[in-house]
Amino acid sequence: MIKYPNGSKRQYNTIRTTTSNRGMTLEKEINVTNDYYLEQDVAVIHKKPTPVSIVKVDYPARNKAKIVEAYFKVPSTTDYNGIYRGRYIDFEAKECASLTAFPIKSIHAHQIKHLKDVKRHGAITFIIIRFTKLDETYYIDASEMIDYIDTCNRSSIPYTWFVEHGTLIPYNYVKPVDYISVINQRYPKGE
Amino acid sequence: MIKYPNGSKRQYNTIRTTTSNRGMTLEKEINVTNDYYLEQDVAVIHKKPTPVSIVKVDYPARNKAKIVEAYFKVPSTTDYNGIYRGRYIDFEAKECASLTAFPIKSIHAHQIKHLKDVKRHGAITFIIIRFTKLDETYYIDASEMIDYIDTCNRSSIPYTWFVEHGTLIPYNYVKPVDYISVINQRYPKGE
Repeated sequence: MIKYPNGSKRQYNTIRTTTSNRGMTLEKEINVTNDYYLEQDVAVIHKKPTPVSIVKVDYPARNKAKIVEAYFKVPSTTDYNGIYRGRYIDFEAKECASLTAFPIKSIHAHQIKHLKDVKRHGAITFIIIRFTKLDETYYIDASEMIDYIDTCNRSSIPYTWFVEHGTLIPYNYVKPVDYISVINQRYPKGE
Repeated sequence: MIKYPNGSKRQYNTIRTTTSNRGMTLEKEINVTNDYYLEQDVAVIHKKPTPVSIVKVDYPARNKAKIVEAYFKVPSTTDYNGIYRGRYIDFEAKECASLTAFPIKSIHAHQIKHLKDVKRHGAITFIIIRFTKLDETYYIDASEMIDYIDTCNRSSIPYTWFVEHGTLIPYNYVKPVDYISVINQRYPKGE
């Protein structure tokens, strides 16, 4: 058995090993987490359906509609919203394959505007970014990231920025992306 | 010129005439209203995309995805949600072609569960019902309607129930379904 000089570092490695290569996408894991929150009556947060523009529908049988021509639309809002402890929650989630930086163009201009809009009206807004090759998932305050985007004059945000400004979201078998635990830290009860 | 003995009744008829046969569906009118609220920075409320399950996608050209097989899914939540004055807002909207009653089966069991869930967490929840032949659009508190559904042992809710328990939503050219005005009456500022 290898003895580690630093217990906390060892535990960190253990967490990473447990969660790596488990083969679930970020979206799937957030859905599992949201289902858990719903069943346990912690929060009600849903993924919105993928927006498509439907052009042609066939009716091969009575009461059965088959969409035969449709196109993906650019989303005008974020993918996730809902309610937690009476607060409106709104966030976007993105996977990032790069080891060094997150490309800003992954987030649509519409989504940035939407996050600003709901924030101004009192929402808790954030972005979840997973660096897939590192298997690290960060919670980043949306306003903080948008301020950076608006002022940085770059096409990507370095990985180190997320380490510094984000919070690593803990992994748990029943709550694979337990972002509510981060909300609890950042918005203590009653604030 | 006809002189009406009752000015208020006359105005009521004028409103009905203005709004009748204008040919917009309830969904379209709510979208116009939500766009107005967004532009005026009153509230941020969006319709969720129609949920479809996508089976097959073709790529007839580079960067162009065409969905060639998809099916409509039963929605697991309501169609509309968002934020107003810091409060999470959630509602469903339905047109009713009958003059006398609203069929309860128009609202899915999933949607009723969802409205109960978000209400318990502090949401403002309601249902908008338009009696299309009467051109009357009602705001009904979701809990009040769900209580009625849970106890009435009927398959439909009589029109008269909506007149008694709902609030007629005012029509306005720029805000065709001004439901926020009803929220303002029912939830005075600061409550």
